[in-house]
Parts: sequence; structure tokens; C-alpha cells
Amino acid sequence: MVEPANTVGIPLNHTALLKDELDIVIPTIRNLDFLEMWRPFLLQPYHLIIVQDGDPSKTIAVPEGFDYELYNRNDINRILGPKASCISFKDSACRCFGYMVSKKKYIFTIDDDCFAWLQCRMELLLRIHLEKLNALEQHIKNLLCPSSPVFLHTLYDPYREGADFVRGYPFSLREGVSTAVSHGLWLNIPDYDAPTQLVKPKERNTRYVDAVMTIPKGTLFPMCGMNLAFDRDLIGPAMYFGLMGDGQPIGRYDDMWAGWCVKVICDHLGLGVKTGLPYIYHSKASNPFVNLKKEYKGIFWQEDIIPFFQSAKLSKEAVTVQQCYIELSKMVKEKLSAIDPYFAKLADAMVTWIEAWDELNPATKA
Amino acid sequence: MVEPANTVGIPLNHTALLKDELDIVIPTIRNLDFLEMWRPFLLQPYHLIIVQDGDPSKTIAVPEGFDYELYNRNDINRILGPKASCISFKDSACRCFGYMVSKKKYIFTIDDDCFAWLQCRMELLLRIHLEKLNALEQHIKNLLCPSSPVFLHTLYDPYREGADFVRGYPFSLREGVSTAVSHGLWLNIPDYDAPTQLVKPKERNTRYVDAVMTIPKGTLFPMCGMNLAFDRDLIGPAMYFGLMGDGQPIGRYDDMWAGWCVKVICDHLGLGVKTGLPYIYHSKASNPFVNLKKEYKGIFWQEDIIPFFQSAKLSKEAVTVQQCYIELSKMVKEKLSAIDPYFAKLADAMVTWIEAWDELNPATKA
Repeated sequence: MVEPANTVGIPLNHTALLKDELDIVIPTIRNLDFLEMWRPFLLQPYHLIIVQDGDPSKTIAVPEGFDYELYNRNDINRILGPKASCISFKDSACRCFGYMVSKKKYIFTIDDDCFAWLQCRMELLLRIHLEKLNALEQHIKNLLCPSSPVFLHTLYDPYREGADFVRGYPFSLREGVSTAVSHGLWLNIPDYDAPTQLVKPKERNTRYVDAVMTIPKGTLFPMCGMNLAFDRDLIGPAMYFGLMGDGQPIGRYDDMWAGWCVKVICDHLGLGVKTGLPYIYHSKASNPFVNLKKEYKGIFWQEDIIPFFQSAKLSKEAVTVQQCYIELSKMVKEKLSAIDPYFAKLADAMVTWIEAWDELNPATKA
Repeated sequence: MVEPANTVGIPLNHTALLKDELDIVIPTIRNLDFLEMWRPFLLQPYHLIIVQDGDPSKTIAVPEGFDYELYNRNDINRILGPKASCISFKDSACRCFGYMVSKKKYIFTIDDDCFAWLQCRMELLLRIHLEKLNALEQHIKNLLCPSSPVFLHTLYDPYREGADFVRGYPFSLREGVSTAVSHGLWLNIPDYDAPTQLVKPKERNTRYVDAVMTIPKGTLFPMCGMNLAFDRDLIGPAMYFGLMGDGQPIGRYDDMWAGWCVKVICDHLGLGVKTGLPYIYHSKASNPFVNLKKEYKGIFWQEDIIPFFQSAKLSKEAVTVQQCYIELSKMVKEKLSAIDPYFAKLADAMVTWIEAWDELNPATKA
């Protein structure tokens, strides 16, 4: 455990932070030219796990010089056998296979349309110091500093350099808890649902908010998988992106599903979830008509799913992430199957996911 | 109810916003020369309620041209009679008398060492647009826009101009709830407790975070009274700053006490509390040795008080702020008196406060 930033500081210009302990997971269906943009930050030290979505006969081109392993659907089927059923097909939810095969402590996952530095307007470039744009470094800082979920801190991250806890913050809570998840944000194209995309096609996020905050205990949030890092040892088995895409009645809820499960389990186990910095530059809006088709049922279902997760209580016996996740899968089957038979199937896939995780990661088994 | 900012927008350059519906409450023991700094924003339209702390024979000078009423201890005793016992003496907690005598819907309260615009480093002045520095205008915007307490919004205030709700935010929650409290922050001298002041005398807050966020339901926060606005109709009777200062075993917890009570009641009644913008420039650090003496017991007590408020549940019968507050006073007497007999006295003062409030504000009585 590294000391909080406000005590010893975390080195600012250390681009190879945690190089032997972190994998970068990227789901894709296209050539990875976007990696050129990340080259200054990722090329030398970090290992990439690329999960190829869709047709396995297609060849994905990876720019020269990157250290990577690539898995397509045939690989997933070969490695997991019948348990491969829990990994989505033709949906970026397939990325969670990368979390499972990784042997590293930390994961950083990005979409293939997210850039490491900002190609945005001069206005923004003036405002933002260049050193702030190394997204990966900021995620690592977030994961290495504690979180403060029990009581809100009004001046944002109290562990940041030059900051501390304000008057009225209980001293017993200042040590904080270990951080399991770092949720980064997006400039340019905001992460909108299809209806909002349709209504506001021109809206862009140009506001750079210079803050990291802990999401309070008991509060859920919409976790986006576009720019996300987590501690695999602490929360990995809960980072399942569900059954989405091909053959499923729903898409674009893979990260949301993982976020709800992860937050309930983090709250139960006393782990922290942070949101805010770093930003990535999100360049390409997805097609709102295609998205509406994928999201359609989720828009209705989330109205029931969120209250379900808000009231979900795990038992004292659930002390590992795996145990928590299995308990949650039972609740999903019991309480959500009434919405649609899909949830019974999803609950089964949650169990399969844990079995596959433990098979590939025997050391982490409880 | 004004429409959310992202639908119709709230006028940016409207310095006399809500001029007939807002009072500015300032507790002070010194001449109010600092008001010169606020003149461009406050002079013409707004009415000030100045609560003079300490010796009533002393004359407080108010710069020319301000529209104000001033109350000293003699006035408080005359107006409230025996109920004046609930108003603290020699402590800025006396400001809540101003909330009670106001007849306006909105209150903005500031300390007498807070400046309306930033006299800080060039670096900051470059970063911050001037129009963002009208603290009062930002508070009014915060109070007129809804809050979103049930589910965290990752891109901060979804009601801000140019913003909207992100993917995965339930549509049923997007209408939000009425905002009762707007908690502003401070640049320069951070609001630290005495131990932190002693350890970090040189620390300054220079980070301008361009965001407003709703504090999630069920989460408490350290509410600072230095730069605070609220809707008196919605939450006024809960904005009691307790018994502090002269003759009391504790000081500098007046705003914290109000914040805990207010948040529990807002959560119960479905009202919103926002924190973030606006910033004020806090110029003068108070003496850490004096502060330590005042805070000493509070540092211990808050370790028990906060869990008490975190688990406090109000009954369904409590549907007005007054009813909630009376229920809370009973719980305080029952559960906190074991810590110190002071809490029994405070619980009685909470009841007296409500009686006095209802006497001076008969129309708002349930």
C-alpha cells in the first residue's frame, strides 16, 4: 500500500508506473490505428490484451512495436470450453474475457475510439496542463490512493497533493479504504443514451473538471467502460460485463451491469470507487439508431434494476468477491426474472463466469 | 419553479436575480469594510441582515449605500424574550437569528472575511472567467435548478447549460427534486480544523473545480457556513446553528450541526443539497490555538454524533421541517445525552428555536 499523496506524494513524471502489474484491455472489431495516439504513454512498458469482437476470421492490424496478446472468438471457445457461453459475442462486453486471462493486479480498459491526449479546441489546450493528460498515470494514482466513501469530502480528493481533509471530517475516517475502481470521464462526445443522442446530436462536453471524488457508500452510478481502471485482485471477479450483443435482447448495458454489481460489492466489502479525472478524448459518436435498438429494453428495465440493486443486501457470510457475486446472481434470478426470462439466463452466466474465473485464476480462489 | 438550465437556460448577466426574494445574512464583530468588495454584486438590489456578535454597546460601521438592518444582542433579547436563550452568544452561530427574522424565500450567508471576487494569483485569474465569480448568482442558479440525489451523475450537474444526463441514468429520476441548500467552497485559506491548521499552516487551496454536484441521498457532509445559501421556505426551520460559543463547551461546530440536521431532513423530505461552485476568496485564517480550544470536545464528539445522524430515521408522520426537527431533537436528547449533558441542553434549545421560528413566522407553521 502506497502512502496517501498528501503525505509522501506520488511521482508525477513516471510514465512506466506499475509496468509489471498492469494490463491494458481493449475490445475491438477494427484495426487499432488509434493506438498511435497512445504511443507516448503505452508503447514501451505496458502489455495489451486485445479482445477481438465478432468474426474471428478477420485479421486485426495492431501498429508496430506494441507488446500484446490477441484473443478472438475461437481462442475464447478453446480456452473456456462450454464456459465460453458467459462471454458476449458481437458486443464490447467481450472485453471482460481480457480481465479474466490477465495475470496482473491492475487493469485499464479503453474503447478503440478513445484518445490519450486531446485533439480538441485551443481553448481547452490552454486550460489544461499537458502533464494532466496522461490518463493511465492518473488512473494509477487514483487506484493507489485511498477512497473516502463513508462521509462526503467537499473539497474533492483529500489525498491529492496540496490537499487535506476539511473541518468537520471525522478523524477516524481519514485513513480511508482501499480503492478498487477508478472511473474516468470523457471530453468531446459525451456518453449519452440513444434518445439523448437523437435529441442533442451536436452537444459536446468541453468542461474539464479538475477533480477526483469518491462515490459515497450506498450510492449507485452509471459506470461507463470507455475509460476505466480497476484493481483485479480487489474486485476483478465482479467486473463481469454480462450477456450482451449477438443473441441477447439487449446491448450497451454491459458496463452499467458491471457498475451496479461492482458498487454493491465494494460497499459490502468496504472498498472504494472513484470517479472524475482522468479524461479521455472521445472522438466518434456511435450511431443513435443502432444504439436505440440495442438499448431499447434496457431503458425500461433499468427502472426496476436500479431499485433492485439499491436495496440489495449481501450476507455477512459473503467475504470474498466470488461469494458476493454468487449471492448477487441468486438475487438476480429470484427478483429480476419476473421482468424478463433473460435475467434467469444472465444469472446462470454470472455463475459460469465465476467458475471460469476461478478455473483460470486458481490462486485467487477463496 | 424555474425550468432546468439545460432546457431554457438561466440568464447569465442578471445581477439582480431574485432581488425581492433574497436576504444576505452576515454575522460580525467588526466593521464591515469587506462589503466594499461585494459592492458590484450586492449594493443596489439586495437587503442585508447583519447580526452583531458580542458586546452590543459597540458600534459596527457599515459602508455607505448598503440597504441593511442590524441586530445586536439587546435586539435579539427584546424580540425573542426568554426564547432568546436558543441563540448563541459570542459565536458566529448567532447568524441563524437572521434566518429567523428574514421574511424572504432565499438566504445567502457569508462570513465577514470572505470576498466576492478573487484577489488571488494571476494563474487563477487567467483560468477563471470573470462571470463565474459572482458567487451570489451561482448560488441562485443552484437553488433554482433541481438536484439529483437518488443516483450519482458522473458528469456533475446535469442541469447546467450544455449538459444533460449520461447513458444509464434512469429517465424516471431525471426530473430531479427541489434544491434546498447550495454549499459553496473557498479558495485561498481552506476550511481546516485546528489540528490541520497547526500541522499545515501554509497550505492554500488554489484549485478551482468548475463543478456543482448533488450530495447523494443518505450521505452526510461537513457543511461550512462561510459561503452558504438556502431556500428558507423549504428548509429554514432546520437551519439552526445550535448553542455555541460563550457559556457553551464547544464552538466552531455550529455549521456542522446545522449541516447534519439539514441533510437528514432533506433526505427524509426528498429535497436536494448541492455543493461546489461558487467559490469565495477566504482571506484570513483564524487563530489555530483559539480554534483548538473551541473545537477540542467536538473532535471527540463528532465520532459519535456522525454515526448517530447516519442512522437517524424520521417517522412517516414527520412531513414538515418543523415536525422533522422536533423528532430529531427528541432523538438527540435520548441518544446523545450520554456523551455529555450539553446535548440535553442543545435538544431543548432545538425545541425553543422551532417555537421562536413559528412565533416569528406564523404563516409557515404547519
